Amino acid sequence: MNFRVPGPTPVPPEVMAAMQRQMINHRSKEFAEIFRRVTAGLQHFFHTESDVLIFATSGTGGLEAAVVNTLSPGDRVLGVSIGYFGERFLAIARAYGAEVRELAFPWGKAADPSVIREELQRDPEIKAVLVTHNETSTGVVNDLETIAQVVRGTPALLVVDAISSLGAVPLPMDEWGVDVLITGSQKAWMIPPGLAMVGISPRAWAAHKSARMPRFYFDFTAAKQLAARGSVPFTPAISLFYGLDKALELMAEEGREAIFERHRRVGERARQGVKGLGLELLAEERYASNTVTAIKVPEEMDGELVLERLLEEHGVALGGGPGKMAGRLWRIGHLGWVQEADIDGVMAALGAVLSRG
Amino acid sequence: MNFRVPGPTPVPPEVMAAMQRQMINHRSKEFAEIFRRVTAGLQHFFHTESDVLIFATSGTGGLEAAVVNTLSPGDRVLGVSIGYFGERFLAIARAYGAEVRELAFPWGKAADPSVIREELQRDPEIKAVLVTHNETSTGVVNDLETIAQVVRGTPALLVVDAISSLGAVPLPMDEWGVDVLITGSQKAWMIPPGLAMVGISPRAWAAHKSARMPRFYFDFTAAKQLAARGSVPFTPAISLFYGLDKALELMAEEGREAIFERHRRVGERARQGVKGLGLELLAEERYASNTVTAIKVPEEMDGELVLERLLEEHGVALGGGPGKMAGRLWRIGHLGWVQEADIDGVMAALGAVLSRG
Repeated sequence: MNFRVPGPTPVPPEVMAAMQRQMINHRSKEFAEIFRRVTAGLQHFFHTESDVLIFATSGTGGLEAAVVNTLSPGDRVLGVSIGYFGERFLAIARAYGAEVRELAFPWGKAADPSVIREELQRDPEIKAVLVTHNETSTGVVNDLETIAQVVRGTPALLVVDAISSLGAVPLPMDEWGVDVLITGSQKAWMIPPGLAMVGISPRAWAAHKSARMPRFYFDFTAAKQLAARGSVPFTPAISLFYGLDKALELMAEEGREAIFERHRRVGERARQGVKGLGLELLAEERYASNTVTAIKVPEEMDGELVLERLLEEHGVALGGGPGKMAGRLWRIGHLGWVQEADIDGVMAALGAVLSRG
Repeated sequence: MNFRVPGPTPVPPEVMAAMQRQMINHRSKEFAEIFRRVTAGLQHFFHTESDVLIFATSGTGGLEAAVVNTLSPGDRVLGVSIGYFGERFLAIARAYGAEVRELAFPWGKAADPSVIREELQRDPEIKAVLVTHNETSTGVVNDLETIAQVVRGTPALLVVDAISSLGAVPLPMDEWGVDVLITGSQKAWMIPPGLAMVGISPRAWAAHKSARMPRFYFDFTAAKQLAARGSVPFTPAISLFYGLDKALELMAEEGREAIFERHRRVGERARQGVKGLGLELLAEERYASNTVTAIKVPEEMDGELVLERLLEEHGVALGGGPGKMAGRLWRIGHLGWVQEADIDGVMAALGAVLSRG
């Protein structure tokens, strides 16, 4: 099995084994030790000295936590969308009463920082910019460093969905000046879905004090209070903590820069492989993601049928197109537990299926 | 190790083994099969033909889902509290703008259904009654059948926290007329924390249509739409689905009535054991829970020190007192994977620690 959907990602055997452990009391010293080790490991990969809070939820719950803890109903928000998950981020803000100015770029393109700058200059009342770092639906990575420079010149918070990038590619939270940074366990972190991790800058904590969107389960203050005691407010997903503890250990052994370099190599290998098969990438090379590659399904080809054949005949699992792109994209996840050989296997299988016509 | 906190509960080896499985695509037929089997298994233990939705969250997230999907800000709600978790349920409703009339009974007592009836008669505008079935903090079980009869004579919804009871004791949702019924994976279901399961009656669905509390991650409509396709809106906690699938298989093999009978026997054994040690139960016998037993720490005894000794000297893990009862209670969890011998082991260890003075 070559499991290469863009999340969940495969779980390494050492991590799987670490999760084979009986439950413990989440109010015990034993849990507090795991909690503190995991938190420190996350801070290393977030490149931050600020808080990183952990919630038992899907990545989307992490996005919701970011919104409801920093904003109030009626707040004006600039929502930068470059695909399916960008649209979801904006929908969350709207659901809680934010007034969202949508800045949408075509699927397959990155956001233009200069347009973000113009929008922020036009409306100095904007309280936050919501932006996706790596758009899982299109395989496009935004130039977050430049976007952060633009936002840092204004009073707006920078709230970033890095669910499918953080831990696999460089994203120094403190250095770039990201205020809320969200990721999910089932991506670069190599454990099953069920945890969202959220980094919170001092600016975001200041905004949190006056943020009036309703919240309880996702409340940052409650989570921070319990974190100080080495736990969480509500029963944590203990088996995922076991897994994350081991995964962060593996990641520390490999080293942050080596992990980033591996993802650069693997991303490049994926793009070269796609082009070698005569297929077209959705993203332009200059903003192609090193964690997800989206391939345009050739005109008049049944994209879903190819995915079925890949799975049944070759044991290769790829993702399809989400939302409006259903049937029109193949997506390869290459983050977390992945090597160049995995990509070569995908290309061999895809080549075989396509050559059969 | 005799792990007997009132949740998380121990995971049987068959369930642990079932979770040792690589990730799959949550949009695949393979996942849909698991999803449908798990949903049907839950409906059997909820005793319902209505929907049971599954969220990647702690039990508290399930309570929040129940509130925000059935109510609007300003709605009047009767909040029946008999302990720590009852208070939490009310706090959630308040956080989202419900006007909560609190009906609190002393810790260790059950709610009086006739008082609930009076409150509902006094205020016919009450939209929902929030009540805990089994109060994990005190070991008290409410007479939910009678409470349901009372509420069914009014237009109010009956929203029930059955996190630490459902699956272990009888609670026929449809027959009694419960509108929203919430449970959590780490209790009777014998899997790690991280899933909340919510049953929704036709009356609750009708209320949902006009409920205006903001929500996104926990939205019932989104969950129902995806459930029809054998999936969930946001990446599910896949390893917990593997575990729940196996746990429900084990539960079906043992049989619903046999499980309930086992919990009756184990609950009785726990209470007899406590009395045999000359200790006092917090709950009166007539409303003592068959899933959690709370013991009063004798005056002038250091309750926390006894818990530490139980763990270090005997490998017995019990819970302490939550909130204002810290240090004043010992709590035994006896739900899920538990037999009478486990209780006997707890009593032997407790007796040994206490006799050393």
